[in-house]
Amino acid sequence: MPKFKICIEYDGTDFVGWQKQDNGVSIQEEIEKAVFQLTGETIFLFGAGRTDSGVHAIGQVAHFDLIKKFSTDNIRDGLNQHLRPYPIAILDAKEVKENFHARFSAITRTYQYFIINRRAPLTVDSNKAWCVFKKLNIKKMIFESQFFLGKHNFEAFRSIDCQASSSVKTIDNINIKETKKYIVMTISAKSFLHSQVRIIVGTLVEIGKGKITKSIKDIILQKNRSEAGITAPACGLYLTEVKY
Amino acid sequence: MPKFKICIEYDGTDFVGWQKQDNGVSIQEEIEKAVFQLTGETIFLFGAGRTDSGVHAIGQVAHFDLIKKFSTDNIRDGLNQHLRPYPIAILDAKEVKENFHARFSAITRTYQYFIINRRAPLTVDSNKAWCVFKKLNIKKMIFESQFFLGKHNFEAFRSIDCQASSSVKTIDNINIKETKKYIVMTISAKSFLHSQVRIIVGTLVEIGKGKITKSIKDIILQKNRSEAGITAPACGLYLTEVKY
Repeated sequence: MPKFKICIEYDGTDFVGWQKQDNGVSIQEEIEKAVFQLTGETIFLFGAGRTDSGVHAIGQVAHFDLIKKFSTDNIRDGLNQHLRPYPIAILDAKEVKENFHARFSAITRTYQYFIINRRAPLTVDSNKAWCVFKKLNIKKMIFESQFFLGKHNFEAFRSIDCQASSSVKTIDNINIKETKKYIVMTISAKSFLHSQVRIIVGTLVEIGKGKITKSIKDIILQKNRSEAGITAPACGLYLTEVKY
Repeated sequence: MPKFKICIEYDGTDFVGWQKQDNGVSIQEEIEKAVFQLTGETIFLFGAGRTDSGVHAIGQVAHFDLIKKFSTDNIRDGLNQHLRPYPIAILDAKEVKENFHARFSAITRTYQYFIINRRAPLTVDSNKAWCVFKKLNIKKMIFESQFFLGKHNFEAFRSIDCQASSSVKTIDNINIKETKKYIVMTISAKSFLHSQVRIIVGTLVEIGKGKITKSIKDIILQKNRSEAGITAPACGLYLTEVKY
């Protein structure tokens, strides 16, 4: 039975999120439908990251099994054809070994968060970045971000809906860079808690605004969601890479 | 009479273009309306570049005169408030001298064109870049692009609708850079002919595809629109900077 690994890009704005749900159109469901239209086979699509509604991906990874044989070019181009007009694109398809699992074999997931720090509302970047009106102290945000590195109890940095049994996670990398237009935060870990990246961004932004004066170091230790900042909007977040 | 210079960003997708027209919503008209709503004064807005329908701007410049006094912060924030929900944003407002003219005082206009060269259709960049499916020979495009530099008769590189009396223009700078995601062409000149940048891009892309084998050098000399390539789609083009 051939197993395919696909790399996916999508604009999450008008989806209920990656995961199939009763209340709207999900990315997972539309790709499953496209696989059926292309191959006639009903599959379950396993994704590396269950992105929320409004969150984008330029490097989501998923896998599925087929009974019949298909070339990887046929999988990629055929799925793209059936996915129209949805803003979901299969960037790449590879045949992988039987023991590959998009979710459980992943060793690092990388997310990027895009902020535009200016008074004027967004136009070309509408729904693609978070527009923060108040001038941010980026140096302070960079300094404080480094306290997230390593293994910590992220109880303060997960959604109240998070169902993970443990809130201990290890951040492998976090950096904040300023380009002419954006403030970009890049963060990598084996896995994340529900809304963890968005609460991390929201807290760093409130530190950058001077609204939160506590150090990240202390907020982590207090293990209390209400000590951390707001959950940053979904539109600025991109799942950019999954490593295996 | 105070004169204001404003720097404007817009998503051109759903507009008929910069210029006021009977057949739809233009950026010029919406800003003129916003100025009226903010100040009660009816103005004519002079823009540096008359971008076509679908063309974007991150650095369009325009000017207008008022009778009453307004602070530049009030102009910027007030216009942005009245421009909602249109994807037009005033990035900056300055008071300028009486002899300033957004169109006639400009010494350099810079445009950027964004290409994504891949098989998969666009998602997050939909309407914001040109997706070219066939693999491009970028080295060849870079080599050929350099023949555009300097003063030439651009008869082959203007729209048949172009009304300029002379087709002689001087390109001050042209470069093509490849990033992880985009091929970006940047081009600067005092002024351009109608569709000149898009025909330049379309021709370079057809050279990159191997569809056009003539050199730019020869196409310029032939002064014949049909020897140049297609007009690249509007969605990849951005007016990025106007210098005075």
